[in-house]
Amino acid sequence: MADLYPPYPPPLSPEEESYLLSNLKDWSIAHGLAVRPPPSYVPEAQNPGNALAANAPVTLFPSLFPRTCFEQASDVAQAYNVLYSAIACDEAWLGAVVEELIEIDDFMAGLWKVHLKVKGEGYAQPLSLGLFRSDYMVHVDPEQPLKPTVKQVEFNTIAASFGGLSINVAGLHKYLQLIGAYPPSMSSLFSSGKIPEGQSVPGLALGMAKAHEAYGPSSLGRQTCILFLVQDTERNVFDQRHLEYEIIEKHNITTFRIPWTKVLQQTKLDDQRRLLYLPPQRPDQEYEVSVVYFRAGYAPSEYNGQADWDARLHIERSAAIKCPNILTHLAGTKKVQQVLATPHSPHLSRFLKDSAEADAVLKTFAPIYPMDKSEAGLQARRLASDPESASRYVLKPQREGGGNNIYRKDIPDFLKSLPEQQWPAYILMEMIEPPAQNNVVLRNGELQDGGVICELGVYGACLWRQGEGDGKGEVLYNGHAPYLLRTKGSGVSEGGVATGYSALDSVLLVDK
Amino acid sequence: MADLYPPYPPPLSPEEESYLLSNLKDWSIAHGLAVRPPPSYVPEAQNPGNALAANAPVTLFPSLFPRTCFEQASDVAQAYNVLYSAIACDEAWLGAVVEELIEIDDFMAGLWKVHLKVKGEGYAQPLSLGLFRSDYMVHVDPEQPLKPTVKQVEFNTIAASFGGLSINVAGLHKYLQLIGAYPPSMSSLFSSGKIPEGQSVPGLALGMAKAHEAYGPSSLGRQTCILFLVQDTERNVFDQRHLEYEIIEKHNITTFRIPWTKVLQQTKLDDQRRLLYLPPQRPDQEYEVSVVYFRAGYAPSEYNGQADWDARLHIERSAAIKCPNILTHLAGTKKVQQVLATPHSPHLSRFLKDSAEADAVLKTFAPIYPMDKSEAGLQARRLASDPESASRYVLKPQREGGGNNIYRKDIPDFLKSLPEQQWPAYILMEMIEPPAQNNVVLRNGELQDGGVICELGVYGACLWRQGEGDGKGEVLYNGHAPYLLRTKGSGVSEGGVATGYSALDSVLLVDK
Repeated sequence: MADLYPPYPPPLSPEEESYLLSNLKDWSIAHGLAVRPPPSYVPEAQNPGNALAANAPVTLFPSLFPRTCFEQASDVAQAYNVLYSAIACDEAWLGAVVEELIEIDDFMAGLWKVHLKVKGEGYAQPLSLGLFRSDYMVHVDPEQPLKPTVKQVEFNTIAASFGGLSINVAGLHKYLQLIGAYPPSMSSLFSSGKIPEGQSVPGLALGMAKAHEAYGPSSLGRQTCILFLVQDTERNVFDQRHLEYEIIEKHNITTFRIPWTKVLQQTKLDDQRRLLYLPPQRPDQEYEVSVVYFRAGYAPSEYNGQADWDARLHIERSAAIKCPNILTHLAGTKKVQQVLATPHSPHLSRFLKDSAEADAVLKTFAPIYPMDKSEAGLQARRLASDPESASRYVLKPQREGGGNNIYRKDIPDFLKSLPEQQWPAYILMEMIEPPAQNNVVLRNGELQDGGVICELGVYGACLWRQGEGDGKGEVLYNGHAPYLLRTKGSGVSEGGVATGYSALDSVLLVDK
Repeated sequence: MADLYPPYPPPLSPEEESYLLSNLKDWSIAHGLAVRPPPSYVPEAQNPGNALAANAPVTLFPSLFPRTCFEQASDVAQAYNVLYSAIACDEAWLGAVVEELIEIDDFMAGLWKVHLKVKGEGYAQPLSLGLFRSDYMVHVDPEQPLKPTVKQVEFNTIAASFGGLSINVAGLHKYLQLIGAYPPSMSSLFSSGKIPEGQSVPGLALGMAKAHEAYGPSSLGRQTCILFLVQDTERNVFDQRHLEYEIIEKHNITTFRIPWTKVLQQTKLDDQRRLLYLPPQRPDQEYEVSVVYFRAGYAPSEYNGQADWDARLHIERSAAIKCPNILTHLAGTKKVQQVLATPHSPHLSRFLKDSAEADAVLKTFAPIYPMDKSEAGLQARRLASDPESASRYVLKPQREGGGNNIYRKDIPDFLKSLPEQQWPAYILMEMIEPPAQNNVVLRNGELQDGGVICELGVYGACLWRQGEGDGKGEVLYNGHAPYLLRTKGSGVSEGGVATGYSALDSVLLVDK
């Protein structure tokens, strides 16, 4: 593995570090590469009106990434759009997968119940929008250390974040190179095109614009708008705002932000179940909502009572195009990933008829086993219970959100502590073995350096006609938009940037 | 005066205010309309690495401004460039003006001494760059209340600020209108083109690029650069950075920032007095400086010892194009403004041969009197000592910087308290009477509303050949770039945005 990457990054003298940091901090704020600081950084009392901002956590250097791997991940993005839109259209298949989890996962049971209710009266909107992000790590097979591939970590079908900020990290690192903030020894790494242009903001906004256009003008002559459904307190607000600005300025579409807890108060359905938004700042005006973009409502912790479930049902019943609808949300569960990635699974070819596409997607799967009593499940239970074999695996809960993965040699003891009927709530995944590299992260005004692990996210934007739930969907728009690189200290096993474990990064392509 | 502007701005409901503010705060940070927060807002201990930012103080609404006045100020910008470059080329004339002040103003005396020293050995650079800002207020003559004109407040020849930020305030206010954050009653005010596009960033950067190009490539094959000479602690850093980014990205020119106190340490002169910059972060590389852009070294408080004067001399001696050189810096003294604006002065036509241009410039002068023993000075002493007539005047120190103006009825008592030999350090200026209007300012996370006074700044960029100090200069580039609007509470008599008394604003043109 030592041969995959050259030694990197070069050390900085104190003067180099100071120069790089001052330029990094100023450029970030000047270009909106920012977050609202957490209370642990700036106490709320010190932050009247929540008007302060801090630069988003970023790496000082772009991280090395094999060009073949970057291309592999980009090349399968549209196949993944086809795959997941097809899954979301196949209610019977998805239902069978989800049903296994309903007993043990209240959140999924709740989502499924919402779907069934809407199905009962009939869906009012045949179109569905997915703004997806497929996350990968570089995997180095010890047998072929110079032939790295990407392996999928997870596939996000709801609230995939950082598309609005990641594009600027590539800009930041290119700027730092341009002004000579990196040591001269790095310049050979930086020949033209080595940091690919980010496309996330225009790509995601175009997807939303396509959906808005497909919704069409209001048949009652109302003004239409896209609704960003957001959490009540959102520190990662600029990530979302950059998408809004692109939609408003490039596509001339009206957008509004509505807090998750205000859905029932600020929206209503008309007699055709069209979703109407009543802006509190302009109570005499009604907007007809073309697209609801979920940046909230994705985590179990957001459903604290019947009102939250009512809100989700209210939107699902509406004629607005959901990004995503419930079936698409459920398609993103790890159980689906596991079913697809179970060795010798027949499922992939069910959804991807094009065998070249299916092969390409299959190559990005790390083997994933169920923990049930199927044949593959029994094999997994053996692998997971033996400390020796368990050391190549991770045990993950099927639910979204992270924070509870069990790694390698910790797995056998954990399983012993867990009643066996709860085992099927987990999947067993072969560990991806990323190449070692180092970087330095600036977070909350402080530096952290050391070994890091990088996760590449490739965005997809897909608009499809849902069909009758019979698997006969039709893709109307299929676009993809690289990229996000998220980098975390390799001592850290979990985390999203917003929760503070990792940083935004960009890709420095390595051709070897 | 009540008739000049319609009632404005409309009141906001609490929901409208909340909507407007959240959009304003997010857009500002997302677009780098920001400042580093002062320690009174965020204590330094809470701000490790000085990584936090706050939105720049701005008005919630664009302020009303008569279109005729905006055009008047824009139309004379290039004539002002000609005027002040000609003054800076006429060392004899300027010397006579400055010499009157040397006895009473150590700072000017120091600057003049630097000039004389460099003159003694001969200037090494015949070209000079001015990035000027002429500041105006709307003046309403009670006799002609519907025919407002602009009157000049001051002319800045060094470190004219806010060009990097002001352009985005127009963008902010347009965005707020676009998304419906302003009450519908305002929409008639907002028809197309009512908020003029800002041109300050491209205009000022183009001026610097012209100077850099005129300097030409290094004859010794060194890499050339523009040096931003900045204060050691600068909260208004993004204002400067936006200019840097434009220069780097649009004009492909290398820029560096050098703190005022590090000039002697980080630069040296070669045997041809070419200015060499030695970046501390890259000690093995020398850059040849084409242009030194002063955003420091303009205030007496920055000259705390011989080292500061040595630094100024060091740069003035160099072959770099100064923005500005000492003579141009001195041309910006209020004494020059006063000499030009003294009723029946013969000086204006000395510098502006084009009589139409001279007439247009003259119309922007508020009458200014010296406080010496000339005929005009004796008239001024009579006007200033009588409380009745003094009420139409302001007494201003000749020095830069503000903070010590004496207004109206306070003038007679102030003069009584001042030894008569110090009177010539002041000028007496007829008060400009701006029309009453209101606005709301967001500063440091808090709102302030009430009556406001607006000051329009028009930027000029001028490159000229200095000549032999005999008044025979030659203008090589003459560009102008609207605009800055600075708005302060009308209870506040003084102030720059950075010192906290005022806010950045944009112009909403009124056609009546």
